[in-house]
Amino acid sequence: MALVDECIFCKIIRGEIPSFKVWEDDKTFAFMDINPVAKGHALIVPKFHTPNIYEAPQEWLGPTLGAVGRVARAVRDEVQPDGMNILQANDKGAAQSVFHIHFHVIPRIVDDGLTMNWDMVPGDMDEIDKLAEKIAAHTASE
Amino acid sequence: MALVDECIFCKIIRGEIPSFKVWEDDKTFAFMDINPVAKGHALIVPKFHTPNIYEAPQEWLGPTLGAVGRVARAVRDEVQPDGMNILQANDKGAAQSVFHIHFHVIPRIVDDGLTMNWDMVPGDMDEIDKLAEKIAAHTASE
Repeated sequence: MALVDECIFCKIIRGEIPSFKVWEDDKTFAFMDINPVAKGHALIVPKFHTPNIYEAPQEWLGPTLGAVGRVARAVRDEVQPDGMNILQANDKGAAQSVFHIHFHVIPRIVDDGLTMNWDMVPGDMDEIDKLAEKIAAHTASE
Repeated sequence: MALVDECIFCKIIRGEIPSFKVWEDDKTFAFMDINPVAKGHALIVPKFHTPNIYEAPQEWLGPTLGAVGRVARAVRDEVQPDGMNILQANDKGAAQSVFHIHFHVIPRIVDDGLTMNWDMVPGDMDEIDKLAEKIAAHTASE
């Protein structure tokens, strides 16, 4: 089994915890960050429990980054930001909070002043829900 | 040909511009950032010219992220930071400066206050050279 019982992202993948899903295939799962630092902030995870970039097998990183590209294109097309960062955090100094490797897709606006760590502030769930539906329509239509 | 003439990272891969190399295989190349935001800041690129995450083919992303993991482990073991970010930038809002996809390995210290964009300040080239040799010894010994 590639997933584990006690991990919040494994629970999201299994549907035991609800999420605003924007993409899923046999190896990857993507959903909106409910504490977004920017409109369109999304997360992509492999359907394989591994804590970080140090331990993630290459055979899972390829599909995961393919899904990152797909979600990034969808967020770009829907949100039309000035740029996009892909960010992945490992350990305390990078403020990693869930120890199932995940890649952030973060839309950027010129001079938004974003930092590599941020305080978790819940977004407007209705807005995130609506945006997720639009982004999911893009990922599905490629 | 997977590389192009006018790209600075393609020139580095071909050895036409010198770099502090820390890893190379048939599909990937990694070298120290000469404008480091942190001690151990390194860059990993595919030996395939593609501008960004939107256009990068999945078959190149797998090996590239495999090399990212390898370099991240090497930098972790040599520099022993509190954490590590993997960062990739697309377009102006994310301050992308070279349009050949590249992944930053950025060692983190708790409360270092790093931002997702930064001013380019050249590092001490002798220090970077010595550190590159040590990191390359780690990547080679895996």
